[in-house]
Amino acid sequence: MATFTDIGVAAAMNILSALGFLMAFALLRLQPINGRVYFTKWYLNGERSSRTHSGTFIHKFINLNPRSYLRFLEWMPAALKMSELELIEHAGLDSAVFLRIYLIGLKIFIPITILAFFVLVPVNWTNSTLKNLNSIQYSNIDHLSISNVPAGQFIPPKDVCINHFVFWVHLVMAYVFTFWSCYVLLKEYKIVMAMRLQFLASVERRPDQFTVLVRNVPPDPDESVSELVEHFFLDNHPDHYLTHQVVYNANKIAKLVNEREHMENWRDFYQLKYDRNPSKRPTIKVLWQIMTLYFLLNFLFIYVDAIDFYVSKIDKLSKEVTTKQENIKTNPKHIMPAAFVSFRTRWGAAVCAQTQQTRNPTLWLTEWAPEPRDIYWQNLSISFVSITIRKLIVAVAFFFLTFFFMIPITFVQSLANIEGIEKVAPFLKPLIEVPVIKSFIQGFLPGIILKIFLILLPMILMLMSKFEGFVSLSALQRRSASKYYIFLLVNVFLGSIIAGTAFEQLNSFIHQSANEIPKTIGVSIPMKATFFITYIMVDGWAGIAGEILRLKPLIFFYFKNLFLVKTEKDREKAMDPESINFATSEPQIQLYFLLGLVYAAVTPFLLPFILVFFALAYVVFRHQIINVYDQKYETAAAFWPDVHGHIITALVISQLLLLGLLSTQHAAKSTPLLIPLLVLTIWFHRFCKNRYEPAFVKYPLQEATMKDALEREREPNLDLKAYLRDAYAHPAFKKREDDDKVAGDEAELETIWCPPSTSHARGHQSPASSAAHDHRPYLMLSKNNTTLINSISLFFQIQIHDFIINHQFFYQLS
Amino acid sequence: MATFTDIGVAAAMNILSALGFLMAFALLRLQPINGRVYFTKWYLNGERSSRTHSGTFIHKFINLNPRSYLRFLEWMPAALKMSELELIEHAGLDSAVFLRIYLIGLKIFIPITILAFFVLVPVNWTNSTLKNLNSIQYSNIDHLSISNVPAGQFIPPKDVCINHFVFWVHLVMAYVFTFWSCYVLLKEYKIVMAMRLQFLASVERRPDQFTVLVRNVPPDPDESVSELVEHFFLDNHPDHYLTHQVVYNANKIAKLVNEREHMENWRDFYQLKYDRNPSKRPTIKVLWQIMTLYFLLNFLFIYVDAIDFYVSKIDKLSKEVTTKQENIKTNPKHIMPAAFVSFRTRWGAAVCAQTQQTRNPTLWLTEWAPEPRDIYWQNLSISFVSITIRKLIVAVAFFFLTFFFMIPITFVQSLANIEGIEKVAPFLKPLIEVPVIKSFIQGFLPGIILKIFLILLPMILMLMSKFEGFVSLSALQRRSASKYYIFLLVNVFLGSIIAGTAFEQLNSFIHQSANEIPKTIGVSIPMKATFFITYIMVDGWAGIAGEILRLKPLIFFYFKNLFLVKTEKDREKAMDPESINFATSEPQIQLYFLLGLVYAAVTPFLLPFILVFFALAYVVFRHQIINVYDQKYETAAAFWPDVHGHIITALVISQLLLLGLLSTQHAAKSTPLLIPLLVLTIWFHRFCKNRYEPAFVKYPLQEATMKDALEREREPNLDLKAYLRDAYAHPAFKKREDDDKVAGDEAELETIWCPPSTSHARGHQSPASSAAHDHRPYLMLSKNNTTLINSISLFFQIQIHDFIINHQFFYQLS
Repeated sequence: MATFTDIGVAAAMNILSALGFLMAFALLRLQPINGRVYFTKWYLNGERSSRTHSGTFIHKFINLNPRSYLRFLEWMPAALKMSELELIEHAGLDSAVFLRIYLIGLKIFIPITILAFFVLVPVNWTNSTLKNLNSIQYSNIDHLSISNVPAGQFIPPKDVCINHFVFWVHLVMAYVFTFWSCYVLLKEYKIVMAMRLQFLASVERRPDQFTVLVRNVPPDPDESVSELVEHFFLDNHPDHYLTHQVVYNANKIAKLVNEREHMENWRDFYQLKYDRNPSKRPTIKVLWQIMTLYFLLNFLFIYVDAIDFYVSKIDKLSKEVTTKQENIKTNPKHIMPAAFVSFRTRWGAAVCAQTQQTRNPTLWLTEWAPEPRDIYWQNLSISFVSITIRKLIVAVAFFFLTFFFMIPITFVQSLANIEGIEKVAPFLKPLIEVPVIKSFIQGFLPGIILKIFLILLPMILMLMSKFEGFVSLSALQRRSASKYYIFLLVNVFLGSIIAGTAFEQLNSFIHQSANEIPKTIGVSIPMKATFFITYIMVDGWAGIAGEILRLKPLIFFYFKNLFLVKTEKDREKAMDPESINFATSEPQIQLYFLLGLVYAAVTPFLLPFILVFFALAYVVFRHQIINVYDQKYETAAAFWPDVHGHIITALVISQLLLLGLLSTQHAAKSTPLLIPLLVLTIWFHRFCKNRYEPAFVKYPLQEATMKDALEREREPNLDLKAYLRDAYAHPAFKKREDDDKVAGDEAELETIWCPPSTSHARGHQSPASSAAHDHRPYLMLSKNNTTLINSISLFFQIQIHDFIINHQFFYQLS
Repeated sequence: MATFTDIGVAAAMNILSALGFLMAFALLRLQPINGRVYFTKWYLNGERSSRTHSGTFIHKFINLNPRSYLRFLEWMPAALKMSELELIEHAGLDSAVFLRIYLIGLKIFIPITILAFFVLVPVNWTNSTLKNLNSIQYSNIDHLSISNVPAGQFIPPKDVCINHFVFWVHLVMAYVFTFWSCYVLLKEYKIVMAMRLQFLASVERRPDQFTVLVRNVPPDPDESVSELVEHFFLDNHPDHYLTHQVVYNANKIAKLVNEREHMENWRDFYQLKYDRNPSKRPTIKVLWQIMTLYFLLNFLFIYVDAIDFYVSKIDKLSKEVTTKQENIKTNPKHIMPAAFVSFRTRWGAAVCAQTQQTRNPTLWLTEWAPEPRDIYWQNLSISFVSITIRKLIVAVAFFFLTFFFMIPITFVQSLANIEGIEKVAPFLKPLIEVPVIKSFIQGFLPGIILKIFLILLPMILMLMSKFEGFVSLSALQRRSASKYYIFLLVNVFLGSIIAGTAFEQLNSFIHQSANEIPKTIGVSIPMKATFFITYIMVDGWAGIAGEILRLKPLIFFYFKNLFLVKTEKDREKAMDPESINFATSEPQIQLYFLLGLVYAAVTPFLLPFILVFFALAYVVFRHQIINVYDQKYETAAAFWPDVHGHIITALVISQLLLLGLLSTQHAAKSTPLLIPLLVLTIWFHRFCKNRYEPAFVKYPLQEATMKDALEREREPNLDLKAYLRDAYAHPAFKKREDDDKVAGDEAELETIWCPPSTSHARGHQSPASSAAHDHRPYLMLSKNNTTLINSISLFFQIQIHDFIINHQFFYQLS
């Protein structure tokens, strides 16, 4: 058990590393060259295409202004300065509400911390049972925790009243903490609901307001899906039905479209090259496949005009895509039994989404269409029965993943020892017998295998959720988050408290009585406080500080710039704005809520560490959301009921564990007094569910009517049908039109590309993009003594690319 | 432990008593005098107003036809002859579907019984472990049960394979039984759903098809509730809103209306008397109150004309009711924040019922309006927050009722002993010291107290459900049924298996591990088989046979005829048709499902007893539904999801207990093989819930559209508004109009009353009603030497009545 000193050392180390990250960030973000890494969002918004520093060339890469270094921490107040309304405008409601989770953490734990330090710590401190128990080693921290409260058998009868008093204090505190948490949660639910409704009421016209997703259209031998849908809705929603869009299984074209995009990128690249140097038309080497029949091992290249080559290639692909699209549209095999049905009014859509259409509740299933960007197209055609079976399979699989995941890992670990490897691959024997490698394998490999699994875990959970058949990305995220939360709860929280694998826990729980389980866990809780304090500092403090540094995107950005970036479009792509990954971030935050609530009444000493986490994370993520993250879609905070539910779960767990802990302390008779708290908490959850959740699931008719009326007044002649025509086309169908448009007005394209003649005249290019205009379009950073690497990389890049492309090209010719 | 002989004796006794009841019924039902008790439904339908026997007077009371006695069991085939469609026509869908519960019992248990007797009984019989265990007393029945399967430690190694084989047989049987039950349940759910939808599609136009109940209308200082409702629905359902009916708190008028009805009954009585004997106008004695001021202790009576007196009284009351109605309609204090909103089309109502109206999901709550007869008016005004709090209170109260109900009963029982009574009421001492009374108090009183509680229990549960705020009688019934089911499960089923009160069980379960609980119960199951067989014979066989005899309604009918019946209306009222009491009958049937499923794999010997119960109950209740019961309202089988859910619960419990039982039998390693069965069963329940339940809760739009279109074609000029105007008026408001109509055409009345002049001419009066026309209207059965009793009863009746009436009358005059 750690003492104050131990914790002090750990805290110092973690504070230092966190400060180190923050310093590095503060310095790196000032360099113009990193603009696209640390201000991604502004580039994407178009509000920032370059730094405002003009001047010498070096200024475009490095900030030499000494004064800006003095103000290197200015990002913190800057991040807090933007008002919430501006934030919603800037980054969407999802991001703004996501930040509120951290705020809730602060709102719940600041008063609890103060109360705990003023009431519980003195109470625990004044009791000195621990000093009497010399046989057991207690640390100073345990002085402040509930372990210090004397258990019945050690006290002389005179002290019994004090003992009782102390437990009463803990009991009352448990009530106060719960009521305060529930109060904050209730208020917050109200606010978020209001924000959501306000947001939905104020947003612009969006296709999903008028559209309903219909699934499980029953097959009909006489009519196509499209006709069927039209007739059905003309019959049953005669006054409101407007149009519909059948869902195609367009995964095959998607590939072709991607390839064409790739070609277009190359065409643009050579076009740019030619524009910069009109004296010479660029050529590329093309493998003549017929010749390879004769010279099997040699590559015979011919030179062709690069632009012409790609233009012809794109034409070919476009034609192919068009014919395939026609084929898909007409071939019933590719038509899924699902459709996006749009209505004349929001009222009509709201009605259709909330009602049952036919006798059979598994056919003609209607629900709100997700935002077009939010759709997960692959799952649109899964039938009802299939979904119920899939849910069962995933539930069973997830159970095994949670409780038995250690078994395959142990198995792999056992294979990955020296003997195992030597058996499977005897030729490696001389290599792994080298002492350094041997010790690495023995020491690190098992840990790395576990680490790899934990890194892969969110992906596995996401795959499971996808298998379950959710049709929107946001629902997938929410579902994965819930799974991840359970996994963390079982394997990190309980797994740390009771040493042993989840399976062992499960086994022992089955064999224990219902009131023994909270006792077993409850007793171990106070002893694990120091472990969790360290955990908070490593994962919470240093981890969050690492988040703001964005080391991975930074490195990737440089690498991509070196090897992959050819055109402006590529550079846009090289930026990795990331976004809030709800599926992993939310459960991790929830772990802190859980720790805070569990330890609030037990070891209040842990609370300040959690407070620091919430405060730091709030500032950091606010900064990231303002400057970096780019949300792919907007759900108007649809995830809030999940967040609320998880915090309630944490509350209930904390109460159960406190119950278990207190019942071991010879105050067992007063512990039933905690049961009403449990009942009240669960009732509170049900109340909130009934009261607030509908606002996140349904769309009230009154709102729809109001918005409809408003729109009718503003735009009486709106052609809604035209507006909605392609809103819900499969992305593979949509791209073509975008590209047609691009191909149509090439003049427009050129202004976007900023040809070199205008580039210097404008004078406020971003350093990276101006480098791109420097007549060596494929060598972005060649001035920075990386020529050798670049040359090599370029060589490989072109060789591989040419080979693949030309191979296909000539194959198609022949 | 009972032997075959013991069970044989019990069976013989119960079969005899059941046969006795059936014989008594067969004889009693043939007597014309009992027609209104055993053929109530036909009288209510108007299809039977008298027996078809004409002839001597005695024939009207007693059946002297000897041939009819030979066919005294003809009611059984007659009860089965009516087809299900006719049954639905005759008694409504609720009754027809209720009978299907018994059918399901037969469908599930006939194949299971056959299979069990062909597979399990031989397997258990051939094992002879029990014979080796002379130390324990086993009965013959246990030979056929699983107790007979040898446990691991007793067998020589050679037998181990047989042992394993036996357990595998039980395991496979458990799977087969579950799959068969689920298959039957699935098919049945499908059929019932189809029946419900068919019924809803085919029924006549009913007000509830167009009407939605709106609750929690928010208060508005500027507008009345009525205006508010109208504006809201004109805004949000502009094309569909038709009219609405505000809900009034009319409980006060209800009293007045009842009183008026009472007066009308008396008026009719004297009118009849006068019609029969026009020579003398009937008079009644009336207390002149002013005189009582002088002769305080004497009653001074004056004689007034009876008919005039009651007519004036009714006029007075009618005026009072009218003014109070006006008062209620205008006084906002009496207007509840709820309304019945009717729509132009079924489509409009279906949409409104299924959608959320406003931002705040606790305001403007819409749901399908129950049938007018089905409404529980008192609960219409409870607010959302209040309902959630009430639910919490009831949940806690029900928990305590279930687990701690023995505590107050034990307390009362302890008071009700000799010493307790002597302490409270010393003057009773001489009385209770009489040996007979003393032994009665000591021997029977505690049992009677428990019995009284158990008789009161359904009422207590119904009160709890009412407190929870359900707005329809059918929902109250369903809710009470679920509560009663849980109570029976805990206190009858578990309470019988593990001796001890529910609270003791709860306590021991909390202190046992999760896998010990099914073991503890599972082990006791085989030993309790004989107890449950006796229970089935007493409660199931004799109880059901007693049901058909209708002893209580029979006696009550005679008593009412003697003392209360004055007019034809009264005789109508004296018939007590009863109806299926879903709240108590359904849980009792479910107990048999539970017993059957639990013992199917353990002691198959119990199954035939259950089969007899289901078959007998099916015939008996089919007869009762055809001939006696009169359902008060029609819910179109809305209770089916509950029935299905309860059977699934029984399945899960049976699996858990089998798991516990097998795991004690040293085949513990193979028991996890039962867990997939558990998971599959729960999954099956969820599947059914998603697949079929919506058909019982929502009204599909397609159906609504079809029915609307049909109606538009048939009756294009229907005045729906007029049709719906008073459909949802409070009963107290409605009655007035019925009565006005009655008062309006008195000529019509007289033909209904059948004056004596036509009575004999028609010649086919029911004996009771012809007795009523025998110039002694108030002495129904005076010919049957009951004159003395009648005279006395009449005297008291008139005295008490006069006193009350006149007292009020003169009080109002003064």
